Amino acid sequence: MDIHIRLGRRGGLTEQIYRQLFAAVLDGRLRAGARLPPTRELAVRLAVSRNTVALAYERLVAEGVAEGRVGAGTYVVDASPPRVDASRRRAPVGAVHPLPVWRAIAVLPPRRGSAVPYDFRPGTPDSALFPFTAWRRLMAGALRESAPRYASDAHPAGHDGLRAAIARHVGVSRAVKTNADDVVVTHGAQQAFDLIGRVLLAPGTVVAMEDPGYPRVRLLYRSLGARLAAVPVDDEGLVVDAIPATAKVVYVTPSHQFPLGRVMSLRRRAALLAWAERRGGVIIEDDYDSEFRFGGRPLDPLQSLDRAGRVLYVGSFSKVLLPALRLGFVIAPASLQPALQAARQLTDWHGEPAAQAALARFIDEGLLARHIRAVTRHYAARYARVTAGIEARLSHWLRVVPSAAGLHVAAEQVGRAPDLADVIARAGSRGVAAARLADYAMTTPVHDGLVLGFGGISGDAIDEGLARLATAFTAASRSSPVRHRRGNVESCSGS
Amino acid sequence: MDIHIRLGRRGGLTEQIYRQLFAAVLDGRLRAGARLPPTRELAVRLAVSRNTVALAYERLVAEGVAEGRVGAGTYVVDASPPRVDASRRRAPVGAVHPLPVWRAIAVLPPRRGSAVPYDFRPGTPDSALFPFTAWRRLMAGALRESAPRYASDAHPAGHDGLRAAIARHVGVSRAVKTNADDVVVTHGAQQAFDLIGRVLLAPGTVVAMEDPGYPRVRLLYRSLGARLAAVPVDDEGLVVDAIPATAKVVYVTPSHQFPLGRVMSLRRRAALLAWAERRGGVIIEDDYDSEFRFGGRPLDPLQSLDRAGRVLYVGSFSKVLLPALRLGFVIAPASLQPALQAARQLTDWHGEPAAQAALARFIDEGLLARHIRAVTRHYAARYARVTAGIEARLSHWLRVVPSAAGLHVAAEQVGRAPDLADVIARAGSRGVAAARLADYAMTTPVHDGLVLGFGGISGDAIDEGLARLATAFTAASRSSPVRHRRGNVESCSGS
Repeated sequence: MDIHIRLGRRGGLTEQIYRQLFAAVLDGRLRAGARLPPTRELAVRLAVSRNTVALAYERLVAEGVAEGRVGAGTYVVDASPPRVDASRRRAPVGAVHPLPVWRAIAVLPPRRGSAVPYDFRPGTPDSALFPFTAWRRLMAGALRESAPRYASDAHPAGHDGLRAAIARHVGVSRAVKTNADDVVVTHGAQQAFDLIGRVLLAPGTVVAMEDPGYPRVRLLYRSLGARLAAVPVDDEGLVVDAIPATAKVVYVTPSHQFPLGRVMSLRRRAALLAWAERRGGVIIEDDYDSEFRFGGRPLDPLQSLDRAGRVLYVGSFSKVLLPALRLGFVIAPASLQPALQAARQLTDWHGEPAAQAALARFIDEGLLARHIRAVTRHYAARYARVTAGIEARLSHWLRVVPSAAGLHVAAEQVGRAPDLADVIARAGSRGVAAARLADYAMTTPVHDGLVLGFGGISGDAIDEGLARLATAFTAASRSSPVRHRRGNVESCSGS
Repeated sequence: MDIHIRLGRRGGLTEQIYRQLFAAVLDGRLRAGARLPPTRELAVRLAVSRNTVALAYERLVAEGVAEGRVGAGTYVVDASPPRVDASRRRAPVGAVHPLPVWRAIAVLPPRRGSAVPYDFRPGTPDSALFPFTAWRRLMAGALRESAPRYASDAHPAGHDGLRAAIARHVGVSRAVKTNADDVVVTHGAQQAFDLIGRVLLAPGTVVAMEDPGYPRVRLLYRSLGARLAAVPVDDEGLVVDAIPATAKVVYVTPSHQFPLGRVMSLRRRAALLAWAERRGGVIIEDDYDSEFRFGGRPLDPLQSLDRAGRVLYVGSFSKVLLPALRLGFVIAPASLQPALQAARQLTDWHGEPAAQAALARFIDEGLLARHIRAVTRHYAARYARVTAGIEARLSHWLRVVPSAAGLHVAAEQVGRAPDLADVIARAGSRGVAAARLADYAMTTPVHDGLVLGFGGISGDAIDEGLARLATAFTAASRSSPVRHRRGNVESCSGS
């Protein structure tokens, strides 16, 4: 069994084992008929008592996900497609339960009240760089003008002026070939992925995802009933030859692979487009973090290289402006426009007219381009400082993955490295927060290391944070068993 | 075959027949193996040429939805579950097509540029009544305060203060038993229905819907793969005994049935709750238009009568404030909170912090309650004027369905009535717009008549609009064939 189980500090051990196995069944990593490892074997591997594993298995059996066969171990039963019935049968009287798939999907709690002095967590820009004064002026104007409207005046594809402004903006900045009619404005990139999923994914459709990759899109498509196929990422980006024959859709981050940060090579881009043409496949291009470039000339996006109309291009203004603004878009071929717009209308009708009008102005007045130039200078300086700091203080354990854009840097572990969960825990007690690369893996993680964001930290704090991180590495190396870095072996951190 | 086909003025006749039959297959009204009526028979019934029907059938066959059997007519083939493969196989080279279900769902075009002098179309409040000055003040303050935030600071269930304010508001105004933790703030009621659908509906789950009822929720749940069951509505509301045994979920508008406007009786409410307890079913209570009450004491919502925790209560501020604001909510039991919040996070992360903070203030400062009292007086006056006008000028053809709340009134046709499509077309050329009751039907319409909204019309314009409508009725009665009003017979208007 190739299932990666990792035990953390939160929650009971039985609960953690149960949840991760359950998620593996729903993901399709554990298929119907697969045998679970003997309780004794898994207990040894995870360094827990055999009873802890046995209780997790019993719960899986009680949930109808696994079955014990006398004298022959425990096997996964066919739990798909998830049905309301199955959930209801096991529900306590009076309680309404969601579909089984939602039991494996937890809400990411908000960060409220958790100020971290040295915050390297990826995923957020520095909101102090946002031009609040200009934005408030534009919003005040937009509220005045867009106010006396009927809901039915608002187009589900978005504000006319904003659709045109976005088409011009990505045409100039990213060489995307498009016009206003191709643009559907969304409530952030996440809603763009959602609308795409709803119009393209039937239960069982196979979606190829980068491994490691962006968990929120994986969970989203899984919640829509898709089957996910993990495709590895190497120095050139997604390994196109490893896309399984059953895949219909590929989700990819070519400008700045999440989380590794690599740029997909031109050769690979061509190979991926050839795959789509040959197979009649669809490519979802998440042009994640492409705005903040500090090295080299950007490669053209897949969308502009595509001759067959098989690429859906997704962008977002959440990182460029403020995450709280929730403004993104998808640029899609005409053949998908009616369905995407209908899906938007059925999901939530349309976006906020005032915020959309304000953003259109912001782009048209040249403020967006100016803002991007300004913040890119800031982030480039932080990138240089973080990479130099890793080289100077952490090169014994980490090696920077080269990157040319974005708000974070990935650093893979090298040689003998201490248990990274232990490092992160020790860093946390010293006021330093960072993410672990293996947490973005779908299958057995090939890449482990750290992901260090610099949207929430700047200047001298970067050096001090990295120095504290080095202290955590040293302490963890002394106290925890040193492990060899191995390729395809299951990693079990914690205990 | 019980399929209702209605030919309008828009689009080719073949196209209309094809689309309606295709939709019937996707709806499950036409099942696999069902025989389509002979082309000759349907042609006579619809008063079109036989070739027109034959072409529609040929297209269904070409789409793989129907098959001709030699010498034995045309039959529906198994077209569910819809799969990407099926769509792709028939796609022209290079074009990406959506799932088949989306072919039957069209986007409702925005009303831009279509000012109607006498606009009785239902569904929009009068935005002239909205307190723009107060709202702008609150928004300006909220933009200032809620600005320097991380996206990850925002909870997917919504702004804390707004969740608490909504819980208090519906507790006081609607006797809903709840607290802030039960509230998920949504992007309008439509997103609330979407989140509920995603956590409860598996492909094939049967959802009972009011017939006639709200088309946008039908289309939404159909797009999520649910099977819809039409349940009739009588003087007491949804006919609970007619809910099919297979149904797991019921969608209902008890305060002000859409579109008929009736209030569900207390006896029926008790029966529906008993159904949910007995069957382990779930009730989605859309407390549509309950705010604007102009007669009688309101009945308690199902949510507050429910002892088993099986009711999800959905409300919206779009009608009370401005549709463009897109603020609604669902109040759900604790057992569904993690899944609903995760679904919100995967769909679009969270709502607009500034608008949510402004609404919290608006409620807390008592402005919402004051605003509702003020607009209710306006709408009550309009309701009285519309119903009196129908009585005075249109009682030969229409009878008002009694109602005690809301922004529209339904009027059922009585006795001999002219073709209503003809009436609506003639009224349109006189500057009057209204909706037809049968357009909200799922199956053969039992109720026909008009739906007259008064969010977009007031004062003397109401009388003048109804006078013009009466002229249209008279003209249509003279020229078009008068039909008896019949119960369960297929109605085919237009030709």
